[in-house]
Amino acid sequence: MSTAPIRVVQYGLGPIGLETARAVLAKQDTGHIELVGAIDIDPNKVGKDLGELLGLEAPTGITVEADAECVLQERKPAVALHTTSSFLSTMYEQLVLCARQGVHVVSSTEELAYPYDRHPEIARRLDEVAREHGVVIVGTGVNPGYAMDTLALMATGVCTDVRTIRVERVVDAGGRRLPLQQKVGAGITAEAFAERKQTGTFGHIGLRESALLIADGLGWPIDDLQETLEPMMADEDVKTPFLTVRAGQVAGIHHAITAYADGQAVLSLDLKMYVGAKDPKDAVYVEGTPPISLVVEGGIFGDTATVAMLVNTVPRVLEATPGLKTMKDLAVPRAFATRPLAS
Amino acid sequence: MSTAPIRVVQYGLGPIGLETARAVLAKQDTGHIELVGAIDIDPNKVGKDLGELLGLEAPTGITVEADAECVLQERKPAVALHTTSSFLSTMYEQLVLCARQGVHVVSSTEELAYPYDRHPEIARRLDEVAREHGVVIVGTGVNPGYAMDTLALMATGVCTDVRTIRVERVVDAGGRRLPLQQKVGAGITAEAFAERKQTGTFGHIGLRESALLIADGLGWPIDDLQETLEPMMADEDVKTPFLTVRAGQVAGIHHAITAYADGQAVLSLDLKMYVGAKDPKDAVYVEGTPPISLVVEGGIFGDTATVAMLVNTVPRVLEATPGLKTMKDLAVPRAFATRPLAS
Repeated sequence: MSTAPIRVVQYGLGPIGLETARAVLAKQDTGHIELVGAIDIDPNKVGKDLGELLGLEAPTGITVEADAECVLQERKPAVALHTTSSFLSTMYEQLVLCARQGVHVVSSTEELAYPYDRHPEIARRLDEVAREHGVVIVGTGVNPGYAMDTLALMATGVCTDVRTIRVERVVDAGGRRLPLQQKVGAGITAEAFAERKQTGTFGHIGLRESALLIADGLGWPIDDLQETLEPMMADEDVKTPFLTVRAGQVAGIHHAITAYADGQAVLSLDLKMYVGAKDPKDAVYVEGTPPISLVVEGGIFGDTATVAMLVNTVPRVLEATPGLKTMKDLAVPRAFATRPLAS
Repeated sequence: MSTAPIRVVQYGLGPIGLETARAVLAKQDTGHIELVGAIDIDPNKVGKDLGELLGLEAPTGITVEADAECVLQERKPAVALHTTSSFLSTMYEQLVLCARQGVHVVSSTEELAYPYDRHPEIARRLDEVAREHGVVIVGTGVNPGYAMDTLALMATGVCTDVRTIRVERVVDAGGRRLPLQQKVGAGITAEAFAERKQTGTFGHIGLRESALLIADGLGWPIDDLQETLEPMMADEDVKTPFLTVRAGQVAGIHHAITAYADGQAVLSLDLKMYVGAKDPKDAVYVEGTPPISLVVEGGIFGDTATVAMLVNTVPRVLEATPGLKTMKDLAVPRAFATRPLAS
């Protein structure tokens, strides 16, 4: 490709946002992508060079700014890599702002992976504003966005007939970043787990979205969804780089959802994220013609994979027709701006 | 979906074409697709009802016709399922004919999976005529089209960095249709294998296309391709429903290709198709960040899967922008017009 690099801004500089910015910077020497701005409202970050926040030796020349509109207007990026929140209702105006500036959005917002169910009105408005301004808005990541939805759809591509689908993801949270270990409740008691569960905001965000994305992708009418969330208990002490889980404490979550059509279970997604997980994997089992048993051995390492999906989706939104999209609408995901044999 | 069924014609009624027509007929009661014509020039087929050729109890009402132009004009299908030849140069005018009638083409032609290398001039012309008439032309199937290319691209979607890719497909030809067993040389001698190899038309068609599709999808510049074709020899007698291979005879092929960038091997595709194959599988191994080891356990059953990919690609071409496309340009493959829990 001899075309000009794709100009992107990093919108949101939490742990995933910082790693996404780092990945873009690492790809700049391919000439395919260029980071032209960084946005965050955290007063501890605003005004600092991105290199300082990333622990780089040299400054990047990109200063963190709080005024998103100003950055988008001045820097004229093609795409915003958006990583500010899991929840649409608290931040969808940020997406509207990007669209109004003619900037495509690739967002890690879990609810955006399939927004039509929980937030039909926001979805309608986002689609409208995206079409009006000729941009694409899409939510992606490893999960939701790939491991438990897009990969499952892909697995059915070679089937003339699909009767049921079972998706399993087993993640060893012990190898992931601290916020994720805390998110799954590693080290808390069974009672504390039950209390957190009562809040309704505990567990993995996006399982419902993944199930509905698969069902929509297949054109399956779903008349019920049943979700369960239980603790995975440690049966021996487990030590991670960040914390220790004692035997009898919570090691993580077992979060599952089953989708029903005509009263029968047709689609199930089963997610276990816990420290000390045995046999981590991503698997899709299709009961169909032919049957498919697709396994990513060892599983997909989530922190890196979410960053990868965000960056790799950048060229895909440039090819798509304008509007609010989901992963089923974009061309097959694939690595972008890599160099064979480069270290 | 409450939209009208997608009207398709079956263009070519060899073994794959007949099974594709059968699959479309089986899906008609979903209301998403409708077979409206069947084209073949074989005098043994012309004039017969498709139901007779498929061994159905009742006639389908669709008579095989030899005049493709006439069928396309009269029946006005949206998409032609095209299964006449592996080679572009002998039949690309059939694709031009479809395009001129405003009919999208989903073709099993192996060389069409990535036509830009072997047939740049035909590819240019097909793209031009497709754009002019607002249609999509795409080549797909299980291999090329999925197992050794699109699935490999998909595997890299979660990687920030990809250094090398190795794709392996092991097929037990003993479970496949007779023409495939004959195609891989099952039961011939090593000498006969060497003679066939001299003809230059022996071996799997599409390995080069798959390698170049992956490289193009990743934006990797490839400066050399090295292909090898060797016999897999039977070390014991193997009996299939159609033939017996004796110990010491050829059981099938081992066909491999390696792609080089800057003089280094960066991408390899390794295909073994032989009767009595141990441990059939489809696998993609990505050396990258994170590393990915994606395995379809038992492999993807090819005869059904090629039919599935053809039919499942029908709705994808309707969504795409006009032109000559490859699988990297279409939305993620997935099953179409299936009904959960239907037998």
